[in-house]
Amino acid sequence: MATKLIGKQTFALSNPPSFAGHACVVGKKEGEGPLRDSFDFISEDSFLGEKTWEKAESALVKKAAGLALSKAALSNSDINCIFCGDLLNQCTGTTFGVRDSNIPMFGVYGACSTMAESLALAALTIDGGFADKTMAVTSSHFCSAERQFRTPLEYGGQRPPSAQWTVTGSGAAVLTAEGPGPYVTHVTPGRIVDNGVTDANNMGAAMAPAAYDTIKRHFEDLSVGPDAYDLIVTGDLGAIGSEILRDFFAADGVDIAGRHADCGLLIFDRKKQDVHSGGSGCGCAATVLCGYLLNGMREGRWNKILFTATGALLSPTTTMQGESIPSIACSVAISKTK
Amino acid sequence: MATKLIGKQTFALSNPPSFAGHACVVGKKEGEGPLRDSFDFISEDSFLGEKTWEKAESALVKKAAGLALSKAALSNSDINCIFCGDLLNQCTGTTFGVRDSNIPMFGVYGACSTMAESLALAALTIDGGFADKTMAVTSSHFCSAERQFRTPLEYGGQRPPSAQWTVTGSGAAVLTAEGPGPYVTHVTPGRIVDNGVTDANNMGAAMAPAAYDTIKRHFEDLSVGPDAYDLIVTGDLGAIGSEILRDFFAADGVDIAGRHADCGLLIFDRKKQDVHSGGSGCGCAATVLCGYLLNGMREGRWNKILFTATGALLSPTTTMQGESIPSIACSVAISKTK
Repeated sequence: MATKLIGKQTFALSNPPSFAGHACVVGKKEGEGPLRDSFDFISEDSFLGEKTWEKAESALVKKAAGLALSKAALSNSDINCIFCGDLLNQCTGTTFGVRDSNIPMFGVYGACSTMAESLALAALTIDGGFADKTMAVTSSHFCSAERQFRTPLEYGGQRPPSAQWTVTGSGAAVLTAEGPGPYVTHVTPGRIVDNGVTDANNMGAAMAPAAYDTIKRHFEDLSVGPDAYDLIVTGDLGAIGSEILRDFFAADGVDIAGRHADCGLLIFDRKKQDVHSGGSGCGCAATVLCGYLLNGMREGRWNKILFTATGALLSPTTTMQGESIPSIACSVAISKTK
Repeated sequence: MATKLIGKQTFALSNPPSFAGHACVVGKKEGEGPLRDSFDFISEDSFLGEKTWEKAESALVKKAAGLALSKAALSNSDINCIFCGDLLNQCTGTTFGVRDSNIPMFGVYGACSTMAESLALAALTIDGGFADKTMAVTSSHFCSAERQFRTPLEYGGQRPPSAQWTVTGSGAAVLTAEGPGPYVTHVTPGRIVDNGVTDANNMGAAMAPAAYDTIKRHFEDLSVGPDAYDLIVTGDLGAIGSEILRDFFAADGVDIAGRHADCGLLIFDRKKQDVHSGGSGCGCAATVLCGYLLNGMREGRWNKILFTATGALLSPTTTMQGESIPSIACSVAISKTK
């Protein structure tokens, strides 16, 4: 019997895995933002010495994974398996980034929710008794994402105010069966929610209902409210999506505003940096988690956070075919104590 | 401690989950091949009544998942989570196929190895105590794959003899914690292997070293040889890749030829059907597993099979940038008894 399944869809880990190391590397623009001190490496060069932006994204992955391992005082051969994925077609950002690592790999795809999904599976694999040490890593790159999903940068297309700015960065985390924490205690996987939004320049509006669905389920499954967490942090809803999420909860008579933050709003200063509705991309939630959030937990700023990365599961092809945007959100509860 | 990890990278399940239902649906060409009697549904219409090939692929997924559930006498709401993925950019074939199911979802990407990866994670999730009932589903469609990865069909590009034919089809499997079997007993996740092959029209050659790496590791971890299995079945190495795999083992003094089969060679009749080196695509391994192979096990044709789906983790962009083809293979051991 599924002894770790509580409520409808939440997994309660019996021996919560510990973060043994985590690292984040970003591009220049992210390094000029409010979280600059939390990044392990800031590249002034958007190519990272490579010939293409896609190869640069893989270089970010390689660097983040290497730093996370080094902080955990482990090497590639110690890791039982890695979960990774990104936004590029066929997930080549992470695949090529971990290609030389020799670590058994599970590729995952959850659009911008990929860090939560990877982390969830990395934790379940340890708690299930299959591994002692696992990793999760994801990435995004503004330039590779723009030309793949929107228009070539040289085209200079105008962006509506609801658009978000894809973060150039990669975040990596090493989990171990034993350790001093913080710990992954619960996972609530997301269901697809599609409320009919068709505007690919308004991902926040498309994803907010998915975040609401998963977080609400998480609360119900654990019979808790928002006050169970010091921080409820979404991945990249941005300004518009965050407001929608808070409104949804307010309509239920639940006030999350005081405890809610969004990685897409944390990583950039919207007044000084031209990012419209905020940051986005797999690298957004990943770099904020693997720097600012986990560092903050270690420093005692927060004891319990609910990390909920959100993803818009569209493609340029589905948009061109007139489809709406299916979205998903995966919640991972992280606690300083088991 | 990781009590279920044996050897370097194999997971031994402590209470092997059972296949409770499985189904496969295919297109017309597959329905004219040698496995025609094993398919649950053969569509004469490559659009399946939809307006685009991408939507048709999602229709295949929906049909396969629905049939598998129906055979298991279960409904969507009984399933704790689903693992799914496909070849389309951003995995929209499966995402849109399961969009309305309301089942908590983990998207995965392992190129043509996706069925083995999905099945592996679906089994681990049950054995880890997180779920009682899970599903794995993948798909591919010749027409959506050709125009995305190669050239528009209307272009009529010539195919070299080493090329393979993407299977139009979807396979779905339902796993349950208890049941009469067959059972998933072991999982050996793959590592990326890249021997420098750059010809995107010769996937078999690129993937064979990955299949060899995983199967060899599996044998070593379990301290067994090929005779531990009645059938060692690869995903879609085709004629060229299969020969390379057998040669690799022969060089070690291990003869797998008598027990090896390849889904890409099983699904089409290469003498009568114009498929060059054989079938390929996520749907190839998935439809052969969820029909011919699992039916054969139930009928007593084989007691133990090692299902090893292989994937080429390239994208058109990486190929255009001169990159070689990283490949991966995931092995799932299936047995009539626990």
